[in-house]
Amino acid sequence: VKFAREGLPAGTPVVGMVGGGQLARMTQQAAIALGVQLRVLAEDPLISAAQAVADAPVGDYRDHDAVRRFAAECDVVTFDHEHVPTGLLHELESRGVVVRPGPEALVHAQDKAVMRRRLDEIGAPSPAHALVATPAEVVAFAASAGGFPVVLKTTRGGYDGKGVWFAKGPDDVAIDQAFATGAAILAEEKVDFVRELSALVARSPHGQAVAYPVVESVQADGICVEVTAPAPGLDGSRAARAQQVALRIAGELGVTGVLAVEMFEARDGRLLVNELAMRPHNTGHWTIDGAVTSQFENHLRAVLDLPLGSPAARASYTVMANVLGGDVPDMHKGLLHVMARDPELKVHFYGKPVRPGRKVGHVTAYGEDLEQVRDRARHAAAYLTGTIDE
Amino acid sequence: VKFAREGLPAGTPVVGMVGGGQLARMTQQAAIALGVQLRVLAEDPLISAAQAVADAPVGDYRDHDAVRRFAAECDVVTFDHEHVPTGLLHELESRGVVVRPGPEALVHAQDKAVMRRRLDEIGAPSPAHALVATPAEVVAFAASAGGFPVVLKTTRGGYDGKGVWFAKGPDDVAIDQAFATGAAILAEEKVDFVRELSALVARSPHGQAVAYPVVESVQADGICVEVTAPAPGLDGSRAARAQQVALRIAGELGVTGVLAVEMFEARDGRLLVNELAMRPHNTGHWTIDGAVTSQFENHLRAVLDLPLGSPAARASYTVMANVLGGDVPDMHKGLLHVMARDPELKVHFYGKPVRPGRKVGHVTAYGEDLEQVRDRARHAAAYLTGTIDE
Repeated sequence: VKFAREGLPAGTPVVGMVGGGQLARMTQQAAIALGVQLRVLAEDPLISAAQAVADAPVGDYRDHDAVRRFAAECDVVTFDHEHVPTGLLHELESRGVVVRPGPEALVHAQDKAVMRRRLDEIGAPSPAHALVATPAEVVAFAASAGGFPVVLKTTRGGYDGKGVWFAKGPDDVAIDQAFATGAAILAEEKVDFVRELSALVARSPHGQAVAYPVVESVQADGICVEVTAPAPGLDGSRAARAQQVALRIAGELGVTGVLAVEMFEARDGRLLVNELAMRPHNTGHWTIDGAVTSQFENHLRAVLDLPLGSPAARASYTVMANVLGGDVPDMHKGLLHVMARDPELKVHFYGKPVRPGRKVGHVTAYGEDLEQVRDRARHAAAYLTGTIDE
Repeated sequence: VKFAREGLPAGTPVVGMVGGGQLARMTQQAAIALGVQLRVLAEDPLISAAQAVADAPVGDYRDHDAVRRFAAECDVVTFDHEHVPTGLLHELESRGVVVRPGPEALVHAQDKAVMRRRLDEIGAPSPAHALVATPAEVVAFAASAGGFPVVLKTTRGGYDGKGVWFAKGPDDVAIDQAFATGAAILAEEKVDFVRELSALVARSPHGQAVAYPVVESVQADGICVEVTAPAPGLDGSRAARAQQVALRIAGELGVTGVLAVEMFEARDGRLLVNELAMRPHNTGHWTIDGAVTSQFENHLRAVLDLPLGSPAARASYTVMANVLGGDVPDMHKGLLHVMARDPELKVHFYGKPVRPGRKVGHVTAYGEDLEQVRDRARHAAAYLTGTIDE
């Protein structure tokens, strides 16, 4: 432990985040302002967040001893990702560790089958879905859900397009690939959607909650690449409905911290829940520069049971574009051009070595004219990635 | 050295800041976004910025060996304060260290006699002033400058009201007190001012510069307690003149990084330079929440010779109020009330133990109505200090 609690100013909260990715790194910006001492349980001494905090012990999030030792020096434990085994979290709670979100809530972001069952129970709208154990059950599900194609997902462990298959028909090799993993498989209706939306809320242990403006997100190859806040042209009553669904899920599941509810806006008018994330989320990165209170600050305020900050947008439109790794290993070279071209652009690098397709940062632009704002963000992201050179 | 440069993503700039106070701490928020690895030469392992960065070796800024060792692992060296001896900075430069601002510029923020002489040379407006070596010279200066009272200042080492005396007449004990220090003493006209202004600019090595809106600052007992951006009711041509003076000084002195030019708005209409600071400055803290680009980000962009970000304000009015230590050692207790009362308030704690009168944080409010914005900031600062309890 680098900082004994007694060495810090009186009342300083010590928050431990399991996982040292960019979410923990950006949480540190909020922690600095709030006077919160953020510690990170890091995968690697040089990982993103470990470069940015004073105390980042290296340890495996599946190693009970490592997590226990880490938690013992924190007032609250929270997460950069959802991969910590549910059993380990229950064990921590039984030892008196304050875990937020707690395992009873977090399991719904860890296990898609548990999530779907619970959403059905509380009447939150999901695509048609069923657990399937054999190719024959996939075919039966397809018959009941309007036919192929259907989506197959491992119930645990998928992210950024991993652990997901699209089966176009009963003989599609994707069905065999899914079952070859040996994992439990959830079949879902492939929703014909107009676009994807995300409703992000934060909720504190005593039940206060705030809802951010509903955003539109664009995915490419399973990775979020662009977010527009608010979702352009989204009908006010539909936006309110999306926020209500997210607030309802947060309340019913007892979420503490940020909950992102990714939704499909279906062509037939339905709003359907796609995924849940119980941590700061890619669809909320725009809030750092675009909202009164960032998702990272509200996550900290929530897990510390402090009153939540305003989620209001500060500009008419804010667009966030992810910077993906390309062929250029030195991301900083591109800054000269990008910053000179747009003095109002906000750049966020994650301290991650470039690999093709890897999220290594994001840029944010905001303003009154949606097309201009979107062009600025897209240009900067593409230039930094290296897909354009002027 | 915690992070060898080769362990970080390609092109990651390593910036070293000498001094671990709140300015270095807040610079870390900007460094995280820019993908800059910020290292701090800390006075103490638990000092403000050492709680917030991954690598904060402890060393004395007057110790040539300690500063040399620190600088050897940085691409650029910059400062949280102006106390590093000029000779040591020249020595670093002669060894090839990139020091920004350089000693030729920084000496003007370190030595008030050098500053006044140079401002006179470039035609920037100062109060009447003279170096004085005896009480008789103080009396002679007063006679030439419109009479007593006069201000006496040590030419080096003063800050936050320290090293400053007000002599009301020829027999005032303040004159003896000033000379008793054994330091070189500068006498200055005591300006009859309407208010204090601050013109903050950032300048990069190749000469690009940006000027922030001119702000009004309020001091109490020599400590900045409140800043309003922009300075209310300041005539546009006068504001432009203040910005031009600051840009001129930055250019003539070869400043790199942030330059704060504190000015008096005299009752007789003159704008007179009071002090220079060549680092992020208390009168620029409002920019974190109130401007497109914070002073901390522009300081980093400047010392790295990156294009500068827009200094434009994001709201009609932004008010920053310093949180001073009071009788309550646990600052976090006050957050429950302050955050619940004002969900749009931005709180910044410095990780500094409370001592009466010590700057331990600041709050920022912004909006359209100046009176409301000011009331919100003042209330929150007073509540956190403990001078009000509802």
